[in-house]
Amino acid sequence: MTSLAEQTIPTPDPDYAGKVRESFKRQAFMGHLGAELTAVGPGTCEIRIPYREALTQQHGFFHGGCIGALADVTAGYAGYTTAPADATLLTVEYKISMVAPGKGEALVGRGRVIRAGRTIVTIAADIFAVDGVVETLCATALQTIMIRHGRPDSRSADRA
Amino acid sequence: MTSLAEQTIPTPDPDYAGKVRESFKRQAFMGHLGAELTAVGPGTCEIRIPYREALTQQHGFFHGGCIGALADVTAGYAGYTTAPADATLLTVEYKISMVAPGKGEALVGRGRVIRAGRTIVTIAADIFAVDGVVETLCATALQTIMIRHGRPDSRSADRA
Amino acid sequence: MTSLAEQTIPTPDPDYAGKVRESFKRQAFMGHLGAELTAVGPGTCEIRIPYREALTQQHGFFHGGCIGALADVTAGYAGYTTAPADATLLTVEYKISMVAPGKGEALVGRGRVIRAGRTIVTIAADIFAVDGVVETLCATALQTIMIRHGRPDSRSADRA
Amino acid sequence: MTSLAEQTIPTPDPDYAGKVRESFKRQAFMGHLGAELTAVGPGTCEIRIPYREALTQQHGFFHGGCIGALADVTAGYAGYTTAPADATLLTVEYKISMVAPGKGEALVGRGRVIRAGRTIVTIAADIFAVDGVVETLCATALQTIMIRHGRPDSRSADRA
Repeated sequence: MTSLAEQTIPTPDPDYAGKVRESFKRQAFMGHLGAELTAVGPGTCEIRIPYREALTQQHGFFHGGCIGALADVTAGYAGYTTAPADATLLTVEYKISMVAPGKGEALVGRGRVIRAGRTIVTIAADIFAVDGVVETLCATALQTIMIRHGRPDSRSADRA
Repeated sequence: MTSLAEQTIPTPDPDYAGKVRESFKRQAFMGHLGAELTAVGPGTCEIRIPYREALTQQHGFFHGGCIGALADVTAGYAGYTTAPADATLLTVEYKISMVAPGKGEALVGRGRVIRAGRTIVTIAADIFAVDGVVETLCATALQTIMIRHGRPDSRSADRA
Repeated sequence: MTSLAEQTIPTPDPDYAGKVRESFKRQAFMGHLGAELTAVGPGTCEIRIPYREALTQQHGFFHGGCIGALADVTAGYAGYTTAPADATLLTVEYKISMVAPGKGEALVGRGRVIRAGRTIVTIAADIFAVDGVVETLCATALQTIMIRHGRPDSRSADRA
Repeated sequence: MTSLAEQTIPTPDPDYAGKVRESFKRQAFMGHLGAELTAVGPGTCEIRIPYREALTQQHGFFHGGCIGALADVTAGYAGYTTAPADATLLTVEYKISMVAPGKGEALVGRGRVIRAGRTIVTIAADIFAVDGVVETLCATALQTIMIRHGRPDSRSADRA
């Protein structure tokens, strides 16, 4: 939708990209999946997971749970770019539709903020299976996160 | 809902539990998460993931992506118990609401079929964080799977 | 899940039922659907829509859009019982799975709070098609609402 | 995503637009909402609902249930364009995120097919609140429908 692309996504923290990078590094599960943060922008985020046998389902393709986890973090960090410096985020919920098998040398997730509220942020994420230069959409997701003000990301946080 | 508990969930494959066990073993990603299949019944499934540092987010709790993956497989295998012997399944979509942090010595996922159609099966799954004998609900999910008849689970399968 | 039924749902507004009744009355769309508020409890709500030709799809059953609207308000008002007196609510999102046609003399929706946070409330709702004393589950939904403190329900409200 | 826009959406029924128009007319609930089918294309659909007091919530804006119903039918008919002549459709599920109040002289829903399978079709829909020439995104949805082959839309149909 052009109207979405044209909206200005606010990034109150000038170092929003550094903040995302730091938080990403602290997530041990991202290392366990071999995930790499490849791009961060205002309201956007891209994360890549190279293929490994350990990430597969019974047919040798990327497991749906791995695709879902990638959608979760890609959307979450896209949303996190809109938070102020002293805030952490909570995933409230997400929904993911699988549209093709995760068959390829890598998965790439791309998230973009749909609407950035002060407390509630809505984000879309598309997950592509990559085979050389060809990217095939394998899943699309919609996520809701909650921004928790005054709670730095490095501190422990309970649910609001 | 009592009306749900009372409905009879069909299991046309007499060895539905063996089928689920075999399929689960073939999913390398389940091994990577350290997941254990702890129970299978007609339209139900229970899977457990013991705590490991490798599965955490920045606050040291189970990562939401790990919680989501557990919901995905728990619901999927609960639904798979309703499939005939010569069928495989595809996850069509799921939605998950996070309601508490994944804080504990293990996650336990429990799936139960809501409605078993010939082609489309709807399943609910609850994910609990376990601390000793206390289980705290940390997420609840609704999933849709598609049964693909005449496609054994061990063969490669594309999306319908 | 017994563990859910056993939890105590907080209702900080002693007149939570009156508040729901008043808000329901102000929704012209509920009158347009012929919806009746039949029960309200702590974290629960029941709403009924008698059959009318005007509410049908091409096969003469209740339209999915009507079923979805019932899920939306039933879950929303179940969640609203957990809000303090000076708060209004916003629907953040919901997901609904359709499991049987809406075929009968009425639809009945029943919502129950899954988790009541101060700001975010997660609610489940089941929609049944009623034929005499027989109730058939026709849809199940999961909803997220946001409680807006200090914003009475009768005032106009923008999105948080 | 440009990759989505570029894909060719199949419309095996040459009269897909006529089929959608006929089906839309048979839905009494669409008349009850005052909905108008304003455009149909391969994998796309646009439906408009002019403002009426009868469609509002307690703040005088379009009710969320009306917004949800519009998302449901807009996505459903976008998906229905991909079905052969002798097929009807069933809504399997949808998820909708509300991002702004439904405040304006009309709602416009626009659906577009994300992936058209033989049996399962995934569709996205955006709902805009219209005020003069300004359109504001008020909700975004993802839907799954099932194509039932050999079941004309005008006949009664149970759930697969």
